[in-house]
This record gives sequence, C-alpha cells and structure tokens, in this order.
Amino acid sequence: MQVQRRRLREDLLTNATFGAVNVEEGHGRTVLTGTDADRRAREYFVDRLEERNLEVRVDPVGNIAGRWVPDSADPMTAPVALGSHLDSVPNGGIFDGPLGVYAALESVRALQDAEVPLERPIDVVCFTGEEGQRFDYGALGSAVAVGDVSTEWALTREDDEGVSLEEALQRIGFSGSDTINPETWDSWLELHIEQAETLINKGAQAGIISAITGITRCEASIEGEANHAGTTSMRDRTDALTAASEFVLDIERAASERLAVDSSAPVATVGHSVVSPNAPNVVPGAVTLTVDVRDTNYSTMEYLVDRAKTSLARLESERGVKTSFNRSADRPPQTMNERCRIALQDAATNHDIPVVELESRAAHDTMRVAKVTDASMLFAPSHDGLSHTPLEWTDWDDCVAATQILTGAIETLAEAE
Amino acid sequence: MQVQRRRLREDLLTNATFGAVNVEEGHGRTVLTGTDADRRAREYFVDRLEERNLEVRVDPVGNIAGRWVPDSADPMTAPVALGSHLDSVPNGGIFDGPLGVYAALESVRALQDAEVPLERPIDVVCFTGEEGQRFDYGALGSAVAVGDVSTEWALTREDDEGVSLEEALQRIGFSGSDTINPETWDSWLELHIEQAETLINKGAQAGIISAITGITRCEASIEGEANHAGTTSMRDRTDALTAASEFVLDIERAASERLAVDSSAPVATVGHSVVSPNAPNVVPGAVTLTVDVRDTNYSTMEYLVDRAKTSLARLESERGVKTSFNRSADRPPQTMNERCRIALQDAATNHDIPVVELESRAAHDTMRVAKVTDASMLFAPSHDGLSHTPLEWTDWDDCVAATQILTGAIETLAEAE
Repeated sequence: MQVQRRRLREDLLTNATFGAVNVEEGHGRTVLTGTDADRRAREYFVDRLEERNLEVRVDPVGNIAGRWVPDSADPMTAPVALGSHLDSVPNGGIFDGPLGVYAALESVRALQDAEVPLERPIDVVCFTGEEGQRFDYGALGSAVAVGDVSTEWALTREDDEGVSLEEALQRIGFSGSDTINPETWDSWLELHIEQAETLINKGAQAGIISAITGITRCEASIEGEANHAGTTSMRDRTDALTAASEFVLDIERAASERLAVDSSAPVATVGHSVVSPNAPNVVPGAVTLTVDVRDTNYSTMEYLVDRAKTSLARLESERGVKTSFNRSADRPPQTMNERCRIALQDAATNHDIPVVELESRAAHDTMRVAKVTDASMLFAPSHDGLSHTPLEWTDWDDCVAATQILTGAIETLAEAE
Repeated sequence: MQVQRRRLREDLLTNATFGAVNVEEGHGRTVLTGTDADRRAREYFVDRLEERNLEVRVDPVGNIAGRWVPDSADPMTAPVALGSHLDSVPNGGIFDGPLGVYAALESVRALQDAEVPLERPIDVVCFTGEEGQRFDYGALGSAVAVGDVSTEWALTREDDEGVSLEEALQRIGFSGSDTINPETWDSWLELHIEQAETLINKGAQAGIISAITGITRCEASIEGEANHAGTTSMRDRTDALTAASEFVLDIERAASERLAVDSSAPVATVGHSVVSPNAPNVVPGAVTLTVDVRDTNYSTMEYLVDRAKTSLARLESERGVKTSFNRSADRPPQTMNERCRIALQDAATNHDIPVVELESRAAHDTMRVAKVTDASMLFAPSHDGLSHTPLEWTDWDDCVAATQILTGAIETLAEAE
C-alpha cells in the first residue's frame, strides 16, 4: 500500500489554518484546548474520519477516536491504535501533534485503498490538551484515558479566567460520553516530530524510539528578608535573589557534571523564577523557582534531585535563608515495547528508509499509553530541531517516509498472531 | 520656646487616619498621590496651617507651602523653609514623611507661642509624591520645584490606569497656580525617620546628616536562547537565567569587596528580575534585571557600575549570551550644608539631646533642594530601623526631641546675619 503525499499535505495545511497566527516567517498557530480554533480543528478531523467511514467516538474529556473495522477483521478483536494531538502551544508550529494525527489517518486510507486483509480494527486517535497550556497539565487527555487522573479531576480544572475544562468542551461541542480506553488496545504507535537535531545530524529520515525520558518537576522557595536597598548594609542582608542565583548555578553544575560521566544525557532546568517584591529599590525577600529534571535513567534523576536539596541546605547554613522544596510531579522513564519497535524497524527496512534508534527527551501522550499497552513512537526530523515556534518545519518527503513506516508497522501489528 | 508633644502627637495620629489600612500589628496607611486619602491628608494640613495664620500656596504639581511672616521679619527677606512629604508607599507607616511635615508646623507654633523675634519668614512645606509610587518617579514634587524636570513633564506622567498627575491633582483640588521655588529660600531643613538602626545602636536621639547617598539605577538585559527543557542538551544551551545568576552574584561580590576596603558603605542591589518566557519546561531565553548602586563616594559608584559592565562582557564571551546595559538614572551624592548642620548641632547641644553625625543611605526631597540652597537633614530613630511597613515606629519622646532641635535650628537660621 502507498501513502499519498497530496492527501497528507492537504490535511496538514488545512489544519494549519485553524488558529493560524500572522508571522513574518514560517507558519504559526495557536490552538488551545476548548477554544474556537480547537473546535474547528476537531470538526475538520471528524469530517475526515467520517469521510472514510471511521466510526467516531468522543469521551468526556474530548479525546477523539475513529474506528475502522476492515471487512477481514473481527470487530471484537483488540484494535491497533495510532495518533497524537491537535492542540498547540501559543504561537506553535503546524507539525507538532497534527503530523501524528493525520499520518495515522493517511495510514488507514492507504490500507483501505490497498484492501489489505487486516485482522484487527484500527483506532485513529486525537488526545485532548497534550501541550498542557490552558489547563496547566501536560498530556491531560491521555492521562484520563489511562487512569493517571480521574475524569472528574480533569473536567474541573480551570484556566486563568476560571473556565473549567468541562465548560470549555461543552462550548465547542466536544464533551462526549463514549469510552476511549488504551487498555483495550492491542498496541499503540505515535508519529511525532523530533524536537532536537539528532536525526538531521545522523542523516536519518526517521527515528524509532527506545525509551521516553522520565520527568521530575520540583518547586523550590527561598525566603530571605526584604529590606531597603539603600539603608541595608551588604553585611546585614539576607538577599533571597543572590541565594537563588547560587541555587540556579548549582543545578546547572550538577547536571553538567553528571552529563560528563553518564551514558544517558540528563538535563536539569530552572525555567521559572519569581522574585518578591521585585522592586528595584528593595533587597529581594523571596524567590520561588521550578526545577525540571529529565533522564532515561531514573537513578540519575534521583541524584539530581538530591543535589538540588543539598544546595538548598547549604544556602540555609551559609546565607541564613529559609528554604522549602516540593517534588510535585514525578514520571519515571518509560521503555518502549519491543514488538512495536520491531514492527517499525521492519517497515523501514522494507521501504529502504534510513532510520536510527533514539530516545525521546520530550514528554508525549505515548509515555502514558505505554503504561497500559504495548507502545512505541516514531520521530520525523524537524529543521534545526525547532518546535513550539512558527519556524518548526518537516520536509514533505520526510512526512511521507515516516507515514510509510507507520503504515507498514500497522499492517504488521494488525495481523493477528 | 517649647514644642508641645500633645499637638505634634495629635496631628500625626489624625494624619494616620487618612488612608489607614487594617493591620493586625502597628499602624499602616496607603496615601498615593492624588487619591482621596491624599486629599484628606492635604486638607487637614492646610487647615492646620491656616489655623496658625500661615498663608498657603499650592503650585501646579500640588506642592504646598504655608508662610509665616513674624511681626519682626521683613516679608521680602529670603525665608527659612522646612518640611517633608505626606504621601506614603502602599501599606506604609505613619512617620515616614508626616513626622517632618508636622514637626515643621509644630516648630512654627512653638516659635509663635514664644514670640521669638525672627528676622526671616518661615515656609512650612509638603512636597508632592516623594515616594514615587503612583507616577513612578521619586521625589517628583521637589524635582519640579528645583527644575530637575519640567512642570509639563511631571503633569503628563500617567499612572497604570492612564490617569495623569494633572487630572489626579485636579480631582482632589490641589492643582494650584502659585510658585514654590527653593532657590528663593535662605535655607532648608527636613526631619525624617532613619530607615536603618544606626541611631538606635549608638543610643542617639537624633542624627545630623552630613551627606545624602548618590544613587545610580541601571537596567541590564541578558539574551540567551529559549529552548525545550527536555530536548536541549546541557552542552547546547544558552541559558539566560544561569548567566543572569552569575551576574547577580558578581554584583554582590563587587559591593562586598568594596565595602571591605572603602571608608564609605557602598551597596549594590539587583532587586528586580524578570525571566522570559518563564515556563518550567523552557530553557530561559531572556532575563532583564535592575542594578541599584548607592554610596556617598561617587568614584565608588562608578567603580561598581564598571564591575557590572565587566561582568556582562565576561558572560558574553564565556556563555555566548547577548547583553545590554543602560544607566537610566544617576544622582551623585549630595553633601549637606555646614551652616545648617551647625545650627542643628548647636540646638541639640543647647537642649542636651544626644546626637550623632551620619549619612543618609536613602533618597529624600532634600537631595534635590540641596542643589539650589543651603540644606541639611535631621533623622529620628525608627524601631528596628523599619520603614515602609505598618510596624514603623518612632517613640514620641524622640519625635519631640527632634522637633526641639529643629525649632532651635530654625531660630538660628531665621536670625538674619
């Protein structure tokens, strides 16, 4: 069976018009969960599923699945599922998410056209709110689907204006009552753009993911004493910002040192910092910071979290600040399923497409799905490793090649053993 | 002549009711320029001036002066002026500003009661917007009075809601057309609370100011590259926040090192820091910071500004960030006038009040007035060195002692040579 570049391209470019932002260079879009742009993207997707006779289900958090039951398949057999997400970050690109959704649909179309005798149904899936922007929780739709959080908890989350996910989904008509449960899937595949330059540097057209990085999110707070910037001598200060600056540098040093000795590639980031009272003429009284630690080796993640705590303890004794530390989220690394990886590898070999094996350093819906069923991911190269920007771009040739691999892998997985 | 504790206390406690805020401990008030609280404070002040037959003038930026021409004085002689400000920071204390205004009035009342034969008129003054809160410019009224900025520039400044100073003053009925020009004054004295603990530590009831610190305000920006916190290796980052952290520590180190070798007491503060995009999962792309440098030695201030620039240059070469540096405000140190200081010292000696000489580490209206006429300041002790908080407190005994010194000094200065 042959995937069609024209159809895939048209779907992605049409999808790019929903929430499109005016930019001087590239193609930007802002599709936040439950907005009008999201509604339009979802409606187009549902139309495209129905056009190919896929039976559409929508669950209470707005996850969408379109099921194709080939004539050759038993509708009661566990389906093979594939897809990604349609939401974006503000001013995001047009491939991050949509490529995986429309490549999934194109795979089904190619398999339908070729009349391949599959023994399993196929689910083409779009998860709600992967980017975690409006409702401040990443991979929200897949989290509900696999039971990481309850439906009620998700639906009552509110955006900055106090609008709940439930209200937002009702407004756009995507508050459904169907069940979408990854546990019932035979297997799952997700195609996504790489958000780094490994594939480009290695000259590969696609990457087969062996593991998804673990992520720990921590919040640190450092409390000093707010004081007059003129009348408080350098000797009498308990400056929360100078203490926080040491902390930031300690985190950077710890990750860099570990990188030098580990086979994995740990990262640690202080991305968020808020100073109080944040006035030019006041010695800072308090700083809150976030620490984001990621690696495919869980013991390295633990080591870096310990280093953060050690840094705070040192600052308490050396600078007299009070500190607190909270590890609010912890997701261990997730190894990808071998059967799925082999299916992807074989498909690539059959089509002579150069691929490499690599690890995902970013989080994806697949890290949740992989906890309850066999799963793997495929990466497509992204120019300069860019994502979350209108400059994000994947060549159409690479989109087609990856979709071809996906289609071949689905064919393998959908043949009952 | 004898100042009366009862009158001074009543004025300060009545003034404390305007803009009073509910606090569990202490006495807080919020009196922003041109608000209803400001109107009430000003109206009460004008009433008190008129009660003692002082002739009230209000200039276009709302500065208020009440003139007393003793029977013994020639109305055309240059007056001695004294006062401070009635506005406050949000949730400020009840002494910072009002003590200087009502001590000035009480001095005049004491001199009137004693029928001291003075040869100069006396101006009791309240400057507009010393705290620089609502219209974001410190010592605004005195800046206009001495010509540091034009009346037009000041009147068109806007608050966060787009209301201009002119509109705000018109609304409260304090947009006047009189002239208040410190250049025409023979001399100027301002009593203010100390915003540090020097007086308390030295067991002094008042401090005579020899110099007001200079202040330089700079803005630094550090630009790195915003990147995905998961996919960007520690080796490939240009993290603006880790660079900014080095900068913050460089500033602290420079001031501390200089403090160890200088006879003055330089301070340097990074009080304001804004990270962009400030998201937990994004390597920071940009940080803007303020640097506030103060000392009574101008060459030390220059040295510290140079150290800040050197730090940025180092970060450009070592971390690959782009930086910019802007010195937006620079007020050199101001030495206080000897004749005024001697008048204060003699008055303290006459009344057996223990005083010390010290430098002002905070900015005051006097730093502007001192550029155009002979001027000095007197400090009263503040519990724990607190200011800009409802916990700010000066004992009534100390208020009275300082007012007594002020009165004696005025008597000296108002006797024509």
